[in-house]
Amino acid sequence: MIDQTLLPDRQRLIAIETVEAMVDAIERLAIRGAPAIGVAGAYGLCLAMRGTHTVEEARSAFQAALPRLRNVRPTAVNLQRMVERMAKMEASAELADSDCRTLREKLLAQAMSIEEEDRHLCQGIGIAGADLIADGATVLTHCNAGRLATAGSGTALAIMYEAWRQGRRFKVIADETRPLLQGARLTAWELEKAGIPVTVICDNAAGHLFAKGMIDLVITGADRVASNGDAANKIGTYTVACLARAHEVPFYIASPSTTFDFDIACGDEIPIEERAEGEVWGGAAESRPAAGIAYRNPAFDVTPAELIAGWVTEAGILQPPFEKIRS
Amino acid sequence: MIDQTLLPDRQRLIAIETVEAMVDAIERLAIRGAPAIGVAGAYGLCLAMRGTHTVEEARSAFQAALPRLRNVRPTAVNLQRMVERMAKMEASAELADSDCRTLREKLLAQAMSIEEEDRHLCQGIGIAGADLIADGATVLTHCNAGRLATAGSGTALAIMYEAWRQGRRFKVIADETRPLLQGARLTAWELEKAGIPVTVICDNAAGHLFAKGMIDLVITGADRVASNGDAANKIGTYTVACLARAHEVPFYIASPSTTFDFDIACGDEIPIEERAEGEVWGGAAESRPAAGIAYRNPAFDVTPAELIAGWVTEAGILQPPFEKIRS
Repeated sequence: MIDQTLLPDRQRLIAIETVEAMVDAIERLAIRGAPAIGVAGAYGLCLAMRGTHTVEEARSAFQAALPRLRNVRPTAVNLQRMVERMAKMEASAELADSDCRTLREKLLAQAMSIEEEDRHLCQGIGIAGADLIADGATVLTHCNAGRLATAGSGTALAIMYEAWRQGRRFKVIADETRPLLQGARLTAWELEKAGIPVTVICDNAAGHLFAKGMIDLVITGADRVASNGDAANKIGTYTVACLARAHEVPFYIASPSTTFDFDIACGDEIPIEERAEGEVWGGAAESRPAAGIAYRNPAFDVTPAELIAGWVTEAGILQPPFEKIRS
Repeated sequence: MIDQTLLPDRQRLIAIETVEAMVDAIERLAIRGAPAIGVAGAYGLCLAMRGTHTVEEARSAFQAALPRLRNVRPTAVNLQRMVERMAKMEASAELADSDCRTLREKLLAQAMSIEEEDRHLCQGIGIAGADLIADGATVLTHCNAGRLATAGSGTALAIMYEAWRQGRRFKVIADETRPLLQGARLTAWELEKAGIPVTVICDNAAGHLFAKGMIDLVITGADRVASNGDAANKIGTYTVACLARAHEVPFYIASPSTTFDFDIACGDEIPIEERAEGEVWGGAAESRPAAGIAYRNPAFDVTPAELIAGWVTEAGILQPPFEKIRS
């Protein structure tokens, strides 16, 4: 995979060959984005069984890897869900009497089908949402919900890619997205490669552009959507949603059905990952400012459903209670 | 003066001995903050006359420096105003027949009185606003409106220093304030030195803390306040004001009467400085991302009066039309 921590300066591919390496890659955001880490989690379970020769060895390695992968990052539901889908397959009657090779092959096929499914979901989101972007519009997005965040063309950015493919011409404002600058580093890189005009701003500048009437539409991805439509996404998304509401600009969430969590009623139940304070003050331990200064670094926030104009999924632009994708 | 670009890593004092050096220090934000650059502008005019021996030489050097200093940074009104106050003194009947030495001495005395006045204004703001901070409160501030931004104890931070001195105990949340991190670098440094508990967050995290009910009060400084109360301040302030309104948290501006501009009716008339794009993508020209990526870097935004609960000045907590300080 591409190591996203090095973009855009370096496009380095890294080979992930062990569970440890996959856990590490997800933890340090070499791979990130709710759908992408779901796919990565599934492949991580396949890696766990690598080098095993008996079915007992394979199942035991799989079981040991299961909680490690599921719990690397708590907010995006895709990781848990895809890991659990793999676990269900491993425990299925179909594989009850499998030998080691069959077990491993079937689970690899499952991971590949999860990847393939994600590609289709992205495509579906793009098609469902493309008409939201009018010719000449300016669309603001936050963080990265593009190719790098999925196995396919993205979620929020899939809509932009599809609208552009259909011939619409528009501009994108990318919030830089502190602390890790996924907007400035990843979204800008992706859109520039696709030939879509992109302007990067400090997160702080969004309010000014809204006030000047320069934003027509907001589309972001999501890491988890609750039954009522409350959506967790990268920290700062909620601020953008408040600004959009204050300026009567529509705010859309784009995410596949796999990001919806119908086991929880509302956003209060979504666990919010708090990441290392070094992400805020910027790096090496020896450069930490005075010990008396504290830091907080919540990695996500929750945008309440009432601020969201629509939820763009592969099944169309939906509204709560999302009957079409509720299984 | 202290070179603020190096804080908190290094506390380096720099000697400013020429107009060029003063213009440069203001331009690159070695000295910043509306009141502080007003004082700096006044001293800059004194530096212009250094080494002159005839009154003609002195007046000519003064006149040449005038537009250069006045126009280094457009948004804060203090710089223009203090430079103009010096110009008025230079052109006054009192100094019409002065010799070189008297002219220079009188103008230096004027600059010193501007500095002294600013110290008093800060003190007045602190006293006027201290009761806003209740015991146990959490106050959010944006950018740096402290000792470093003024000749005295600050504007927004003067209120905190005074409330703390009076025995109130509270916490401060400092927005890091991208792109130049005046909150993370300067406000945190100042408050830590004063023993006031401070937590730094990414600007993006403010919405999350508001949503969790963790902010009781917002106080920021201002770079220019229009007749109707609209206030220009560091980019991102308007976003904070929108968040405060959405969460019914009072938002106060703290600034001396010298920051009010009664020559303009409203915030639309305040010029917004657009600074170098390198501040956004972070530095050296050789590290600039792809040429196809654009950047915007407005350094200020305008918070409309309707979002402001009160304007804390040396003459008390005022409301438009500010009769008490309108001259």
